[in-house]
Amino acid sequence: MSQVKIVENILKANDQIAFQNRLQLDTHDVWAVNLMASPGAGKTSLLMCTAEALRGRLRVGAISGDTASQVDAERIATVGIPTIQINTGGGCHLDANMLQAALAQLPLDEIDLLLIENVGNLVCPANVKLGEHLDVVITSIPEGDDKPYKYPNIFVRVDAVVINKIDLLPYLDFDMEGFKKVVWGMNPNAQIFEVSCKTGAGLDVWVDWLMSKRANKG
Amino acid sequence: MSQVKIVENILKANDQIAFQNRLQLDTHDVWAVNLMASPGAGKTSLLMCTAEALRGRLRVGAISGDTASQVDAERIATVGIPTIQINTGGGCHLDANMLQAALAQLPLDEIDLLLIENVGNLVCPANVKLGEHLDVVITSIPEGDDKPYKYPNIFVRVDAVVINKIDLLPYLDFDMEGFKKVVWGMNPNAQIFEVSCKTGAGLDVWVDWLMSKRANKG
Repeated sequence: MSQVKIVENILKANDQIAFQNRLQLDTHDVWAVNLMASPGAGKTSLLMCTAEALRGRLRVGAISGDTASQVDAERIATVGIPTIQINTGGGCHLDANMLQAALAQLPLDEIDLLLIENVGNLVCPANVKLGEHLDVVITSIPEGDDKPYKYPNIFVRVDAVVINKIDLLPYLDFDMEGFKKVVWGMNPNAQIFEVSCKTGAGLDVWVDWLMSKRANKG
Repeated sequence: MSQVKIVENILKANDQIAFQNRLQLDTHDVWAVNLMASPGAGKTSLLMCTAEALRGRLRVGAISGDTASQVDAERIATVGIPTIQINTGGGCHLDANMLQAALAQLPLDEIDLLLIENVGNLVCPANVKLGEHLDVVITSIPEGDDKPYKYPNIFVRVDAVVINKIDLLPYLDFDMEGFKKVVWGMNPNAQIFEVSCKTGAGLDVWVDWLMSKRANKG
């Protein structure tokens, strides 16, 4: 029993900090999006091309989480937006405490939309609240169309699924309609976007959706 | 202090079961390989084409781990090898206890090489022993060449890195020599293989290496 209690307390502590993070974000009118995905699905690329597409319309800030290195933050910084790198030291997901520390270092009054790149992992980030307003999972064509079956916990809870790297569709077997059917079977309210960060295809629809969610506060 | 003790005990318990698993494998002369990778890197495909390539040379068995579903085991079964699916129920990696349960269901005297497909995850499986003889990480061209920087814990400890989906090299930016340099900088003894499960390229070298490791017991 005592071990179960410890786990419960840790989760409760995380949720309390996530609640504080949300209050802080709302106070500064910052809309936060938690981007989750496998390693290499294109979190950093989507973050960068979203920031580019929103230039002049929304002021974007970024937080990039990885187990190690600052490769991503260095890439993101080239877009010219405020960026904080979180290294989890081997940890498999971001948590509310890490977000709190990162928020303290960002100029929140100069940010309208905060894009949070979680650690590349389709399992562990699924149930850890950060204080975000929207949860998004990015999947990519080369990963295959069976991911919702194998990692359902993340697909059932997100607000949107972004299918990245659609420029590779001619070279790979990916059943787009079958994939969508499975996602909507698990999560009927999920928005699904097809994009290519390489060619720019589909980004306008994704970006318009983000802007409308922010404008309508959900 | 008490929480630290609990974690220590859990790891010790896992290592003890991993040790028992190794004894059991050795008793039956089964050589076990732990295949780790991101979701969609091609663990199941590599497992299947390795089994095909070894047909008539080594008798292969398979264990497939996923958080949910038996999609992979059903695919692997089409190759005609003994296969056990482990569902972790949302858990982010296999552990020695799960392997023990799976071994009890396999005809170990009819298997020379056991390929264990871990849960798709580049973080959590890195430090959990199962009782395996070899650890292999599969990475794939579409994931990008920066993965060793971002997930070093797994790259530093493996015996081999298999770079899958090399058929996609013409369509993607992937610095092969740079990638190898970083891997060997972290892990000078890692064997690196370039393969395509789609075209069959490079599989002979990989399979020969597996056979020689098994023959020489390490």
